[in-house]
Amino acid sequence: MRISLYDTTLRDGVQGEGITFSEDGKMRFVHLLDDLGIDFIEGGFAGSNPRDRRFFTALKRESLSHAKIVAFGLTRRADLTAGEDPQLADLLAAETEWVAIYGKCWMLHVQKVLGTTAETNLAMIADSIRYLREKGRQVLFDAEHFFDGYQDDPAYALKVVETAFAAGAAGIVLCDTNGGTLPHAIFTATQAACDRLPNCRIGIHTHNDTGMAVANAIEAVRGGARMVQGCINGYGERTGNADLVTIIPTLACKMGCSCIAPDRLATLRDVSLITHDLTNRRPDPQQPYVGQSAFSHKAGTHVNAVAKDPRTFEHIDPAVVGNSRHVLVSELSGVSNLRMKAQELGEDLSTKSREELRTLLERIKHQENLGYSYESADGSLKLLLHRALGDAASAFAFEGFRVIVEKRGPGEPCISEATIKVKVNDETALTAGEGSGPVDALNAALRRALTRFYPEINDMALTDYRVRILDPQQATRATTRVLIESGDATRQWGTVGVSENIIEASWQALLDSVEYLLLKEG
Amino acid sequence: MRISLYDTTLRDGVQGEGITFSEDGKMRFVHLLDDLGIDFIEGGFAGSNPRDRRFFTALKRESLSHAKIVAFGLTRRADLTAGEDPQLADLLAAETEWVAIYGKCWMLHVQKVLGTTAETNLAMIADSIRYLREKGRQVLFDAEHFFDGYQDDPAYALKVVETAFAAGAAGIVLCDTNGGTLPHAIFTATQAACDRLPNCRIGIHTHNDTGMAVANAIEAVRGGARMVQGCINGYGERTGNADLVTIIPTLACKMGCSCIAPDRLATLRDVSLITHDLTNRRPDPQQPYVGQSAFSHKAGTHVNAVAKDPRTFEHIDPAVVGNSRHVLVSELSGVSNLRMKAQELGEDLSTKSREELRTLLERIKHQENLGYSYESADGSLKLLLHRALGDAASAFAFEGFRVIVEKRGPGEPCISEATIKVKVNDETALTAGEGSGPVDALNAALRRALTRFYPEINDMALTDYRVRILDPQQATRATTRVLIESGDATRQWGTVGVSENIIEASWQALLDSVEYLLLKEG
Repeated sequence: MRISLYDTTLRDGVQGEGITFSEDGKMRFVHLLDDLGIDFIEGGFAGSNPRDRRFFTALKRESLSHAKIVAFGLTRRADLTAGEDPQLADLLAAETEWVAIYGKCWMLHVQKVLGTTAETNLAMIADSIRYLREKGRQVLFDAEHFFDGYQDDPAYALKVVETAFAAGAAGIVLCDTNGGTLPHAIFTATQAACDRLPNCRIGIHTHNDTGMAVANAIEAVRGGARMVQGCINGYGERTGNADLVTIIPTLACKMGCSCIAPDRLATLRDVSLITHDLTNRRPDPQQPYVGQSAFSHKAGTHVNAVAKDPRTFEHIDPAVVGNSRHVLVSELSGVSNLRMKAQELGEDLSTKSREELRTLLERIKHQENLGYSYESADGSLKLLLHRALGDAASAFAFEGFRVIVEKRGPGEPCISEATIKVKVNDETALTAGEGSGPVDALNAALRRALTRFYPEINDMALTDYRVRILDPQQATRATTRVLIESGDATRQWGTVGVSENIIEASWQALLDSVEYLLLKEG
Repeated sequence: MRISLYDTTLRDGVQGEGITFSEDGKMRFVHLLDDLGIDFIEGGFAGSNPRDRRFFTALKRESLSHAKIVAFGLTRRADLTAGEDPQLADLLAAETEWVAIYGKCWMLHVQKVLGTTAETNLAMIADSIRYLREKGRQVLFDAEHFFDGYQDDPAYALKVVETAFAAGAAGIVLCDTNGGTLPHAIFTATQAACDRLPNCRIGIHTHNDTGMAVANAIEAVRGGARMVQGCINGYGERTGNADLVTIIPTLACKMGCSCIAPDRLATLRDVSLITHDLTNRRPDPQQPYVGQSAFSHKAGTHVNAVAKDPRTFEHIDPAVVGNSRHVLVSELSGVSNLRMKAQELGEDLSTKSREELRTLLERIKHQENLGYSYESADGSLKLLLHRALGDAASAFAFEGFRVIVEKRGPGEPCISEATIKVKVNDETALTAGEGSGPVDALNAALRRALTRFYPEINDMALTDYRVRILDPQQATRATTRVLIESGDATRQWGTVGVSENIIEASWQALLDSVEYLLLKEG
């Protein structure tokens, strides 16, 4: 069964709170989707603003290997002919072969929003489609609120899609615009539309307001839909649109549908991450299939079982979507977790006896009792193993630090300065730094001390800083856990520090972060 | 149709990467769920570690209004009788009326993980349930991998649940342990189990590996399940468990099920937020029903339509789940919210004009844009209103502070000292304090400066201190929000501070905390 994929990230996705692309980013995104094998890419609301207009102009110069660009608009106004409507003129000015227009299927909207009659609404839809066909366009009709309309008055909702098809639409997309419809209702209504229009290509467009956008798209496919609309990473207004990144592997791996090629499927995690990058969003570690945690195992029993047969606790092979397995070390886990984790971190524990491994595990558990947590701190865990294996020579030795934070008065800025002393190759370096806060100042001083010896520190950046108070009821005397995420051109690593003193906890995580970078492999 | 709700956050939820509760937080969470009207609360894996054991002991002293506490474990080992199995002994030692044990339904697991036969597996299940029944327990049987097993060998999977029921299980929970099953397959298999065991209470336990955990739970209910298991906020291993926060309103508002009382439904957003707080997770603004963006409207056409009739673009009334609409224009409801809030805080806004209230609201929104959050900081909000009303005379004036944190060497303790200058009644006090960290030292110095003038400060204690990094990707330059909770004999109040400098953010919250105490009422 062939399913065509339609991406609306650049139109519906950017309605999401905080979702924006740069102009350059939009173009990179279009090529990313084209490479992935997406069939239709909605470029934006034609004519809604000069920026979208410029983008459609720019798109004409691009050559795509597979995808069709679609310009988006709506049916003519009630009081104008299609030829008079400036918005349809804008749509034509985008000069795309394919256009999509939306129209109303729900009498609540026809009456309250358009303020017109059932008959006029049908005429607006038919006229607009015929006009665009006459101008040589392939027209997709977005049946807005189809499912709410069908619930309210099935005869009218079906009359709308029938009218659109009779006027020459190349496809009808059934939209759950408010996102409130349940899967079984989506299935029934889609089946009804497919029965009414057996020769029409039916599509599905769902929103996640009840957390079921993906299931609704899948149920529509079971009901006869052959085009699926969604956004990369589930961006979109309110709770988001259906996530194509979840839908694609479900169609391909679990429903036997043909959509994108298997070798392209393996790039899905990259596509998801690059898109998060383009929109400056932090990836959701729980995102199905591609998330960092999607194939993470914490319980010792699960880790043991996966070692015997991955199918025991993995619903697909993570490599199929470009993801990989992660083993989490926690207080619940055993020796086999540790062995697999060490392997993942590139530390060789194969020569160690079961007794030595148990001692190592006790050590980790002891640290965890103190408040350390290694789940998000692979870097610190690797250092711990490395030191325990006895083959670590520290790149530098810490001698001391002092931090001063001062605020002279209510309106005055808060000033942070740090002085640190470290020893590298028997040479003691005493440096100072300032920053927007005490940890920033410590970081500045540490870098200044070490870059002379290790210039690679310049290529490393701290990318994340999190603080967790472990026993908040101890108030200002509480134990603090600090997690720092760092990265260079090719790697990412997390480190952890714990102390009653937030500055010291940060300092530990900071030292580990740099030491990990400088760790000589093997 | 009555559906019982079963929360597994404290057992399956904490398998999620980075999900942990403090011991105190666990207890607060149990009461939160009890107040919400959850029927069963799984307290943890009985006997997996001393901490869980302590928790079950502590739970015995708590009185709950509605919920049953469930201890979790597994069937006996193949080579031991039920009476010999230390794990079943641990389960009994939890001394709960209800226990849940999991067992295998999938031959892949029986053979590869247990290394035993189909027959022995059935015996392990039957013996364990009978043994726990003999000891007076109500037993729920978690049919692990039921759906994968049913797919593979329906006869055996059904034989397993039949065996459990015959042995005396009070309920059978069908688990999609790997999370890979599609909604229609869940429906069919659940129906088959219900047909086989018409007198048994059937439950459903789903995971989100294909983004369909919620839909799968709903389809199981349509198939005959009458108990739904999930976690608050969809915490859980890999991509998470089914989110009860999404399932509850779907059952109540869209399927006509009876689960929690309507007035409790309106607390759902609070329950979600408090749970995020207890686990120190950032709320997902896209979370269905309760997310900050769940009823946000960006497009002008949508905002206009919603003004005419909210049903045009809202699938339910947000107030039903304690949420509210967000639009980019300032809204009428904002002013009335503010009026109600002020009343609650004992600040009289009745003489203020609508224009003055709007200005005040803008001020609050401006602060919120900077990162302040008043949901858990009533104290700071009251001070803000009080100052805006112009009738506040500060009990003291802040003049300046200096904090020094010093660590002489790797083994040395970290020393924190603070000096502050405040003016009280035209008298300047310069005092110093030390503490286990910089904020503790500031707190000590501030108290020393003020107790001479305001001895009531001795009756006040800081009871909670939380830190949230608002833009962690800015690493050590990120904006930090500090929330402090304080109390005296009769009251509790929260205060907030925000800055790029964690010391300054803490200092703001500390000052507000003391100023609130000293606020002259009326």
